Amino acid sequence: MAPKFPQAMMALIHHLEKLPSIGPRTASRLAFFLLDCPLDNVRSLSSALLDIREKISPCKICGCLAENDNCPICNDSMRDQRKICVVAKRKDIFTIDESGAFQGLYHVLNGLLSPLDHIGPSELAISTLLIRLENIDEVILATPPTVEGDATALYISNLLARKNIKATRLAYGLPAGGDLELADSITLMRALEGRRAL
Amino acid sequence: MAPKFPQAMMALIHHLEKLPSIGPRTASRLAFFLLDCPLDNVRSLSSALLDIREKISPCKICGCLAENDNCPICNDSMRDQRKICVVAKRKDIFTIDESGAFQGLYHVLNGLLSPLDHIGPSELAISTLLIRLENIDEVILATPPTVEGDATALYISNLLARKNIKATRLAYGLPAGGDLELADSITLMRALEGRRAL
Repeated sequence: MAPKFPQAMMALIHHLEKLPSIGPRTASRLAFFLLDCPLDNVRSLSSALLDIREKISPCKICGCLAENDNCPICNDSMRDQRKICVVAKRKDIFTIDESGAFQGLYHVLNGLLSPLDHIGPSELAISTLLIRLENIDEVILATPPTVEGDATALYISNLLARKNIKATRLAYGLPAGGDLELADSITLMRALEGRRAL
Repeated sequence: MAPKFPQAMMALIHHLEKLPSIGPRTASRLAFFLLDCPLDNVRSLSSALLDIREKISPCKICGCLAENDNCPICNDSMRDQRKICVVAKRKDIFTIDESGAFQGLYHVLNGLLSPLDHIGPSELAISTLLIRLENIDEVILATPPTVEGDATALYISNLLARKNIKATRLAYGLPAGGDLELADSITLMRALEGRRAL
């Protein structure tokens, strides 16, 4: 009979396994690492975990990460105040902003329409988007190219059409550097649909 | 200019990146996950981290994980008290014991001889092994098949020879299910050296 790890060790492994991309093997590897590394590192990690929940809250305007009421992007008057890019989740803001291709404002929906999961328009941050539309020229719907992402973009674009605000969607097609061979048929279909004259 | 994550977020990501097998991408993925998951989960993880350092200490006899003075293996009188398996690190005990192939006792060296890193015999738990040798028939040296593992096994086997105690070493050769094609030449050499009559 194999001996079990001590209870405190099992508890930590159990908690680590719940995290994304950490399986049982990585969890026990991390636990042993944390058992042997300097105690100060473990203490700082432990309090850093609590800190993000205590110090960070959603930005009151766009829903992104803020340490005060508003996030650095909403507070930045140098950004294009006439464009809003709508994303499904907060992390998407950092992904898009890192590309440097967009200099406007953002809005986080906190999810996508998904009737099967009982997520309707009232579960998403859509009403807070609608009150931000004054002086806005364009709303870019940067939801992912999935059924839910498409449905959500369509739903919001209908609301925007009633207010005569231009709604656009990210282009979907072949990823840069990707081989045709590796593209699935839906991506290829979208790349063909969106083909442009040279 | 891409916006940085809030400071508390950066701190957590920085701490997560220090863990083995977690790179910058996984670290920020984990941080966002921890920002959105139930607060109780984060609290439990945070205290589970401190718990392993507070509640677990090395077993006073073998050096393995113990919640009291001695570990469950040293306390288990049903195990073969005449065989000691010597391993480099504590995790190795659980790996070997899970195989079910060994029912004796263990001893953790807490490292391997490595003159370049200034790790000599006095840095390893060798003296605590030597005082455990009464009534011991066999010491199995289960150090890894590396230069340091070989040197450490050789050093300890010389000490044991002086006390007329049988020292053995794990067999090294082809892993079960492994293709010859995939074996490196040192593994093949060891497999040939250790060949057996059928």
